[in-house]
Amino acid sequence: MNYEPKDPDFEARVRASFARQAFMATLGAELVAVSPGEVVIALPFREDLTQQHGFLHAGVATSVVDSACGYAALTLMPPGAGVLSVEFKVNLLAPAAGERFIATGRVVKPGRTLTVCAGEMAAERAGECAVVTLMQATMMTLKDRAGVAD
Amino acid sequence: MNYEPKDPDFEARVRASFARQAFMATLGAELVAVSPGEVVIALPFREDLTQQHGFLHAGVATSVVDSACGYAALTLMPPGAGVLSVEFKVNLLAPAAGERFIATGRVVKPGRTLTVCAGEMAAERAGECAVVTLMQATMMTLKDRAGVAD
Amino acid sequence: MNYEPKDPDFEARVRASFARQAFMATLGAELVAVSPGEVVIALPFREDLTQQHGFLHAGVATSVVDSACGYAALTLMPPGAGVLSVEFKVNLLAPAAGERFIATGRVVKPGRTLTVCAGEMAAERAGECAVVTLMQATMMTLKDRAGVAD
Amino acid sequence: MNYEPKDPDFEARVRASFARQAFMATLGAELVAVSPGEVVIALPFREDLTQQHGFLHAGVATSVVDSACGYAALTLMPPGAGVLSVEFKVNLLAPAAGERFIATGRVVKPGRTLTVCAGEMAAERAGECAVVTLMQATMMTLKDRAGVAD
Repeated sequence: MNYEPKDPDFEARVRASFARQAFMATLGAELVAVSPGEVVIALPFREDLTQQHGFLHAGVATSVVDSACGYAALTLMPPGAGVLSVEFKVNLLAPAAGERFIATGRVVKPGRTLTVCAGEMAAERAGECAVVTLMQATMMTLKDRAGVAD
Repeated sequence: MNYEPKDPDFEARVRASFARQAFMATLGAELVAVSPGEVVIALPFREDLTQQHGFLHAGVATSVVDSACGYAALTLMPPGAGVLSVEFKVNLLAPAAGERFIATGRVVKPGRTLTVCAGEMAAERAGECAVVTLMQATMMTLKDRAGVAD
Repeated sequence: MNYEPKDPDFEARVRASFARQAFMATLGAELVAVSPGEVVIALPFREDLTQQHGFLHAGVATSVVDSACGYAALTLMPPGAGVLSVEFKVNLLAPAAGERFIATGRVVKPGRTLTVCAGEMAAERAGECAVVTLMQATMMTLKDRAGVAD
Repeated sequence: MNYEPKDPDFEARVRASFARQAFMATLGAELVAVSPGEVVIALPFREDLTQQHGFLHAGVATSVVDSACGYAALTLMPPGAGVLSVEFKVNLLAPAAGERFIATGRVVKPGRTLTVCAGEMAAERAGECAVVTLMQATMMTLKDRAGVAD
């Protein structure tokens, strides 16, 4: 899809908001790419992010894919608006084993109030790459809400 | 619901597996209660767990509710089995603002292979408590899988 | 939950809108009960509503639970507004076998724009009743939209 | 994706099972295409399939996309197995207005027990075509279950 952003400064805006997501820093996640309707976040593996079998916790995968989807939605929102996750659904296709994970969020349907996104997380492991997490999400545009702007 | 656990040691088993979930320690989450078909996890607020508006990141909420649901399912699984999250859907009812969060996972329908759970996270704030996150999840019983037992 | 409807005529309004849902008549579904934040729909079994193994098609179950959730949301909406399904997630707990099915939709969190609902469908079979379908749904309040009022 | 079917007669098997789904005939849905990992179903608009605003009922859209996803999963299952919908999540991107609807189900991740599918329904209207419904679904392979084979 080829989207026309309503805010020419969409990339700086996404980068500034991502920098304020303290939890992304806690996870060690990095913002890799920002384009209209698509955002990519990378996450190196760390042992303190695992579940009981040594794989990345499903909640960690969800966190980075949710942020990727939310910021993908934000790239298309007008200046002054804020973005909020309304809901998402996640399928865990395979155990999240790997050295590095790449989360991608894409806008499927932008809207004035609601934006639907598709997200995924791929695991890089021994030179191979496989999608391990799939998300379908709804994001909301917030306007004129005190304390909520991105 | 009143469930009969297949493993009399279900509580010790859940507690041991939770202790191996490194990510729960990273978040500062504590296992509060374990009963047949229900598990409760508490999470104190921390600034390094927030999103850009200062609320708990949706992925953090998802992480603790997912663990609560997974362990609720594990309480009813036979000895030697492992639990895995297949998929979940999360609605974010309100911004996760509070001093402390209580995640509860409950088994709605146990099954030999798949177990359906309902989860929620409540936020405690100024003496009040409100549900801010709602989950519907599917968990899987893993048997005879190398390296996967809980 | 005890909800205060914004429209004193909420029941007549739900009944009139349900009567316009041609598909409910096609399925043979009946509106059983309407109260603030909760709606119940009954559906007798019919062979022309089945999937390949003779059970009720998952889409039929979804249809009646979706309508129950949508109208549960409508009971709390202001006069003149219309209701629209934004998204839903359905777990099929057991094959939908029975003589009659009862779908219930309940508001979990009402909102100005979005309302979150929980729905279920129970199957009545040989005098017993069991929940076979579980829904978590988001409904939207539509205002000042041409041709959309309920 | 390029999938290798385990059953060389996968197409005849899907067509025979679809013919047994009485509800598809009730809706007037037709099986359009069957290939390994992908199934397409067409549905002409009918007034008796609508919700209260005259659009296709969300449950009708769900029904045809669910069948498309289930049969996409079945194309990759071994002979003698049956397919069952475990759960699905649906986003309604736009009102389902059109003369004809095309539902497509695709396998995203096949598995021995669980298969994850992505589905969508497009609406054809005045010569244009737009995706109006998006599904993420989990299907299950049933083996040696009395009365359940496809």
